[in-house]
Amino acid sequence: MSSPNIETPARCYADFCLVPVGTANVSVAEEVAEVQRLLKASGLTYTMHSAGTTVEGSWDEVMKVIGQAHTVVHNTGVLRVQTSMRVGTRTDKSQTAAQKVKRVEDILAKNES
Amino acid sequence: MSSPNIETPARCYADFCLVPVGTANVSVAEEVAEVQRLLKASGLTYTMHSAGTTVEGSWDEVMKVIGQAHTVVHNTGVLRVQTSMRVGTRTDKSQTAAQKVKRVEDILAKNES
Amino acid sequence: MSSPNIETPARCYADFCLVPVGTANVSVAEEVAEVQRLLKASGLTYTMHSAGTTVEGSWDEVMKVIGQAHTVVHNTGVLRVQTSMRVGTRTDKSQTAAQKVKRVEDILAKNES
Amino acid sequence: MSSPNIETPARCYADFCLVPVGTANVSVAEEVAEVQRLLKASGLTYTMHSAGTTVEGSWDEVMKVIGQAHTVVHNTGVLRVQTSMRVGTRTDKSQTAAQKVKRVEDILAKNES
Repeated sequence: MSSPNIETPARCYADFCLVPVGTANVSVAEEVAEVQRLLKASGLTYTMHSAGTTVEGSWDEVMKVIGQAHTVVHNTGVLRVQTSMRVGTRTDKSQTAAQKVKRVEDILAKNES
Repeated sequence: MSSPNIETPARCYADFCLVPVGTANVSVAEEVAEVQRLLKASGLTYTMHSAGTTVEGSWDEVMKVIGQAHTVVHNTGVLRVQTSMRVGTRTDKSQTAAQKVKRVEDILAKNES
Repeated sequence: MSSPNIETPARCYADFCLVPVGTANVSVAEEVAEVQRLLKASGLTYTMHSAGTTVEGSWDEVMKVIGQAHTVVHNTGVLRVQTSMRVGTRTDKSQTAAQKVKRVEDILAKNES
Repeated sequence: MSSPNIETPARCYADFCLVPVGTANVSVAEEVAEVQRLLKASGLTYTMHSAGTTVEGSWDEVMKVIGQAHTVVHNTGVLRVQTSMRVGTRTDKSQTAAQKVKRVEDILAKNES
């Protein structure tokens, strides 16, 4: 009963932070490392930062790999996984994560000089 | 180069808030209504609240409909769409959105009596 | 060294979902109930839904009570607390959470008739 | 009617992404640059990445500066501002943003060698 004739976006970026819930372990570094390996294997462009990971690609590819990340963490015995995500799409131009940061840095540099 | 042998979760809930960017219109009610129609057509279970919409189903179905929501909003002429999302999966039991709220209300009721 | 002459917004709404990390317990219902009691005591307007809680008030009051919620959950022995939040402010008019939902429902009702 | 005897956390990190709503301009780079200047003036530790900015400090300081960021963007004429935020607190140890990333990189390096 879904609407098969509406496409999902050809390009998006998603910044996500996955948290395992219900494990006695306070550190989530092992789980994050597991997810980084999965992202590497996916072939998508991604960057890890201290509060999450940004991944770029088609909507379907990006969401698939984040879903697989949930599965991979569940497979280590974690019963509950919670992800916080920001996703952006735009139709006017494609801009990489690196270009977005540069744009802001250029504005800041110009105003300081 | 993705990892086709890892499944995405069979069940998840996602709470999302979609924001159109770069439209002179301050109100996002029209866009939200458009997305509600899409959700209705999807056949998935969903609830709108004042700060977003919660939708339940398989990972792939849920992410597909949110991606379609981006497309639908882009199709109204919005160049940029930004979504903030919380997604949860659990392997120990399936619990609906309504059951989660009831669980908390029961604890509160018990402590007040 | 902060900028004391810039005010924080007089009014905002925040939708938040607090997750205790590093507890063996999968259920977070007890912690959520604890936070609901705190919100009730705060005197602010709030609504719980299945994926979080929406609270309205001045920026400082709202952020204070969410910070207190972290403390309350830490005080139950949880070493790590993670919150995902959406906050909105507007200067053109004040609109309650209930009014926002009604606006969308009115659009949907009009189009269906 | 708030609960003045419960403290907010002495330390937190917040990763936030602020979106101006209701401006015809698709690019948010100017607003992001404005917020970066505010953060610099605050004296808090912060890092910008392509999908947001991470800031560290006491709960009250961090939330104050993000609230001031809303005000600063409103002051440029934007009627509505929406922020998506992840906030974390922990009581077992203090760990900087840089240390968190290093922890994961160390695990990845060890497994690859």
